[in-house]
Amino acid sequence: MFSITVRDHVMVAHSFRGEVFGPAQKLHGATFVVDATFRRTHLDADNIVVDIGLATQELHAVLGRLNYRNLDDEPDFAGTNTTTEFLAKVIADRLAERAREGALGDGARGLDGITVTLHESHVAWASYERAL
Amino acid sequence: MFSITVRDHVMVAHSFRGEVFGPAQKLHGATFVVDATFRRTHLDADNIVVDIGLATQELHAVLGRLNYRNLDDEPDFAGTNTTTEFLAKVIADRLAERAREGALGDGARGLDGITVTLHESHVAWASYERAL
Amino acid sequence: MFSITVRDHVMVAHSFRGEVFGPAQKLHGATFVVDATFRRTHLDADNIVVDIGLATQELHAVLGRLNYRNLDDEPDFAGTNTTTEFLAKVIADRLAERAREGALGDGARGLDGITVTLHESHVAWASYERAL
Amino acid sequence: MFSITVRDHVMVAHSFRGEVFGPAQKLHGATFVVDATFRRTHLDADNIVVDIGLATQELHAVLGRLNYRNLDDEPDFAGTNTTTEFLAKVIADRLAERAREGALGDGARGLDGITVTLHESHVAWASYERAL
Amino acid sequence: MFSITVRDHVMVAHSFRGEVFGPAQKLHGATFVVDATFRRTHLDADNIVVDIGLATQELHAVLGRLNYRNLDDEPDFAGTNTTTEFLAKVIADRLAERAREGALGDGARGLDGITVTLHESHVAWASYERAL
Amino acid sequence: MFSITVRDHVMVAHSFRGEVFGPAQKLHGATFVVDATFRRTHLDADNIVVDIGLATQELHAVLGRLNYRNLDDEPDFAGTNTTTEFLAKVIADRLAERAREGALGDGARGLDGITVTLHESHVAWASYERAL
Repeated sequence: MFSITVRDHVMVAHSFRGEVFGPAQKLHGATFVVDATFRRTHLDADNIVVDIGLATQELHAVLGRLNYRNLDDEPDFAGTNTTTEFLAKVIADRLAERAREGALGDGARGLDGITVTLHESHVAWASYERAL
Repeated sequence: MFSITVRDHVMVAHSFRGEVFGPAQKLHGATFVVDATFRRTHLDADNIVVDIGLATQELHAVLGRLNYRNLDDEPDFAGTNTTTEFLAKVIADRLAERAREGALGDGARGLDGITVTLHESHVAWASYERAL
Repeated sequence: MFSITVRDHVMVAHSFRGEVFGPAQKLHGATFVVDATFRRTHLDADNIVVDIGLATQELHAVLGRLNYRNLDDEPDFAGTNTTTEFLAKVIADRLAERAREGALGDGARGLDGITVTLHESHVAWASYERAL
Repeated sequence: MFSITVRDHVMVAHSFRGEVFGPAQKLHGATFVVDATFRRTHLDADNIVVDIGLATQELHAVLGRLNYRNLDDEPDFAGTNTTTEFLAKVIADRLAERAREGALGDGARGLDGITVTLHESHVAWASYERAL
Repeated sequence: MFSITVRDHVMVAHSFRGEVFGPAQKLHGATFVVDATFRRTHLDADNIVVDIGLATQELHAVLGRLNYRNLDDEPDFAGTNTTTEFLAKVIADRLAERAREGALGDGARGLDGITVTLHESHVAWASYERAL
Repeated sequence: MFSITVRDHVMVAHSFRGEVFGPAQKLHGATFVVDATFRRTHLDADNIVVDIGLATQELHAVLGRLNYRNLDDEPDFAGTNTTTEFLAKVIADRLAERAREGALGDGARGLDGITVTLHESHVAWASYERAL
């Protein structure tokens, strides 16, 4: 199995509901350093998993819809705890949708899966892995 | 599949028996930077894999039983080579036991697996992965 | 010249005023991974720069006054752009004050300077360096 | 499942053929920081996955056949795009061959798989994972 | 003293002349992860060292003149060993020139110095520090 | 001012005397990831600070005198707390001695200074900086 990973980052504000979150129930923020991994069994005719330029561009576009936002005000997330693990799934699902629409190139139709990892600090990170 | 990972570290002394270990047969030591990953298929009602505060606290407690010790003197490890890969299993198994006892909260009963990675330097690390 | 550095992190929300900040004028947030460096010319009688336990504890306490806050609502920062470089100075100055008050131990009175570095992502960081 | 990973690096020149590569069609170069991971279900009698000294030495030898080369001039890669993902497979396959030949020690015959990851920058990396 | 640092990278091919370089006398390549640090004594009216957006953009432009090139063919470097330390100076000098021309904004005229660090692998890097 | 840095690591056991060290008064150990930085004002005729091969080799040799040892048993350190900051000085002084003896090559006689940094974990490190 082959994979390539590209890294970018996003800076958001948000708050959580639920006693389990302790002081994070207050409005605060985070930098998420985001790794998007694309997997496939066989390389394409150019000997690549996916066009790394397009992968970088699409990850940046998907993060652009979150960047410099207060997620508490985003209609997509109304009534939802935008935890690190939840946001990993949001980003992976949106990348999967873009891949299906052809935004990663025709070759990307051979992708088997996507994993997204969000690093919220030097001591904590979360991942979501899905098939394509 | 979702996961979250928390990082801590532990500093121990030990020695190894067996020619394969070369100079590491002498008493020496290591800092292990330890990553504990908790996996589950579905998020809980709070949209999390596990309470990250409890995960951090339990990892710290498990490492506390090893920290600032000469592992050659620990009864639990008598006659055992406390290699990096072996210690990864010790830590994973102790975290699994704590999860089963409820120390990670009720939600943690939905966990599917644990992986523990020990970084012994910038050029070497070891992991142990298990189901829960 | 000797130094020791300890690392911690803090998660805040804030917004900026001024066209130079572009989209960061909107309420957003950041994880700052914070490195506090303590410098001195000669080691103390224990062969250390400063008690690393106290240094870690004081850095954590100083960050605790910022953590999980919306800095736009903090009276200390009213009318101020809480940029990364500005926050590096706030943290360095508060650590210097604690050192002068003896919170880092008597030996810490021999410190020559403090540098604080805030990493706001994997591609950007800021520092403030001062004498003691 | 247990694993150990060792890290080394290699510096090469090469060029790519195909519009998808844009400016990378020109002769350029890369440092690849290379992680080789060895997996097995049970530890051997010494409590290790593989002799880490031999693993380090074999990875270094495999990289030595690529280091300080212009890959466009290597007969092994004639007419081939030596992409990061392709090179991950080359290195994994050559390590697998060395393991089968006994270069990693007799114990290494119990290995289940190898994964090789090549970091081409702080924002991009590629992996190849195979059974043994 | 305040500073901010931005990170980018560049991929080049080159060869060296001189026995001291051993196998690096052959055409090979490198990824340089590049950190550009801007220093100043006092923050500007916006509470910043320099517009981080412009700093990032100018570093990217300066690296763009080197990226995906064989430096042996660049007229600027004819007869010169393009070592990591030498390239750190080239990039620092070109950034200094851009700052003087106003490309970093009017506020950047208050900058005191620039340091450029090039990481050539996980175990080696070089820096050049200059006044402005 | 130019500099180059090379990285290696060393694994030792030791214990400390003094209440300030708390549990570290017990025999324990550490991996120190060690960065040795060499500074000079002007590059030599080859456009380098120092032969990076020799620098790497000498750092490795200096660390070899500490590696896989219990520092409590080393005559050189009898009655001394081998703290991270103290060991940084030991390594810097030994490198300076080797440079003066010519082990870094004739060009290395132009070096202005050496800094040694020891990382004892992902959250703590110490440095010693000296002239040559």
